[in-house]
Amino acid sequence: VTAPIGRLAIVGVGLIGGSLGLVARSRGLAGEVVGCGRGRANLDAALDLGLVDRASTDVTEAVRGADVVVLAVPAASCAPLAAEIARYASPDAVLTDVASVKLPVVTALEAAWPDPGRVVGAHPIAGSHRTGARAASATLFDGARCILTPTAATAPAALARIEALWRGTGALTERMDPARHDDILAWVSHAPHAVAYALAEAVGRAEAGDALLAYAGSGFLDTTRIARGSPTLWRDVLLANATATSTALAASRAVLADLEHALATGDAESLERLLTAARARLPRNDEP
Amino acid sequence: VTAPIGRLAIVGVGLIGGSLGLVARSRGLAGEVVGCGRGRANLDAALDLGLVDRASTDVTEAVRGADVVVLAVPAASCAPLAAEIARYASPDAVLTDVASVKLPVVTALEAAWPDPGRVVGAHPIAGSHRTGARAASATLFDGARCILTPTAATAPAALARIEALWRGTGALTERMDPARHDDILAWVSHAPHAVAYALAEAVGRAEAGDALLAYAGSGFLDTTRIARGSPTLWRDVLLANATATSTALAASRAVLADLEHALATGDAESLERLLTAARARLPRNDEP
Repeated sequence: VTAPIGRLAIVGVGLIGGSLGLVARSRGLAGEVVGCGRGRANLDAALDLGLVDRASTDVTEAVRGADVVVLAVPAASCAPLAAEIARYASPDAVLTDVASVKLPVVTALEAAWPDPGRVVGAHPIAGSHRTGARAASATLFDGARCILTPTAATAPAALARIEALWRGTGALTERMDPARHDDILAWVSHAPHAVAYALAEAVGRAEAGDALLAYAGSGFLDTTRIARGSPTLWRDVLLANATATSTALAASRAVLADLEHALATGDAESLERLLTAARARLPRNDEP
Repeated sequence: VTAPIGRLAIVGVGLIGGSLGLVARSRGLAGEVVGCGRGRANLDAALDLGLVDRASTDVTEAVRGADVVVLAVPAASCAPLAAEIARYASPDAVLTDVASVKLPVVTALEAAWPDPGRVVGAHPIAGSHRTGARAASATLFDGARCILTPTAATAPAALARIEALWRGTGALTERMDPARHDDILAWVSHAPHAVAYALAEAVGRAEAGDALLAYAGSGFLDTTRIARGSPTLWRDVLLANATATSTALAASRAVLADLEHALATGDAESLERLLTAARARLPRNDEP
């Protein structure tokens, strides 16, 4: 049995952090939720929306006395933040994060935190193209997967505490090696983001590219939606998982070459076979 | 001033054909709308939903006496259908289509129709991943672009008639050379479809590909949504616009190679520049 969380500090009250605060408060997963962020307007919105009990722009103050500290910030910001707050947090506080790349983040957090046993990497696979506290949703994690990435150093009690928190949100938790997590995410998230950026950039590079985009329909907009995300955030994620992402990108590039070859040779049979195989990988249209 | 359409025959009562029927009836764009399709169940749904006044599975009967015949079927089916119905249609009937590839379709329709002057290619850029009569919507064309692709052979009166029909649906019509249309669509629709298929297939080819897809989030599903479409339909569209689509695919492949190079060399600056440029091509997140 895991002791309830008295004080939960959430650094970064955006879509993920804000939703976690909202769910933690509404389901009693923590006695108090403290939000922290650099933007006062976003924190005020978080307070208005009831995502947090109180909020501060001072991270050293926000984490003081917290039992659990959640870093809900871009991957590249996790390690610097952990180093900054380490000596202000309670010695038995558990540190966790929600970054979509885990091996480098967890390694850096373990190095920065006083007790590496009290670091637990987590990645809730939930999102939206919306951002900020106003995008927070009480149902964001319902039925979503949340991957926990303990290492040999992780204390079982710390893992159990973070696992209980995420289960409490309605997420389906599972444990996975951080490197394995990053390999999987390269295929289903990091490379697809890069592909979406590449598609937008390819059109832009075409003659009269910007004029072309006026003719884009909903299909193009769906396909490139994830390329609307922050370039610096995705720069950092892609670099943090560069090898696995490159492998996955090269695989997409190879399939594109196959498609081009089928088009160049008018090979209808190969083309249909490839499209049919691809189609069979995906959910059906009546699924989300 | 264009004379109103007495009888409008729509061959293929799916998302586009069904929506056109619904709008034509509700806005009085035609005196009678006759639907035609091979599947009785879909036609019955079209009748129930009020998309058409009457329906038939016999295309030669459906087009008899029509002032305008709309082929709302896959691109590859247009020419065979036109040949089949040519001698049953009224001699002054105007033939139009809604295919997403225009030069080969319009050329074939002009060859098949008794009077090539009465052939007007059209492409309403509206859609959804939903299909069939039940997906029809009265607002599908509101504010959507509809590209008309007259040729040197097109009679001005026929063009005016189809232009008036699409304007009546709420679409924003414009005229364009068929080859120019196909070049543009290669960039914003045909190649993006191929890229989405390639992305799905690349993941599928990975070791444990199907297991990987269990970890796909909403981003991956958005990016590959258009690859859920019919493989045979897209095989035909891609082949019908093979040269322009290949050019656009090669451009995406080149950007992917640039991204891989930046990742391999850890070139954060180039990576950010590329992602930022791509991002700038796209609508903002608060736009559709």
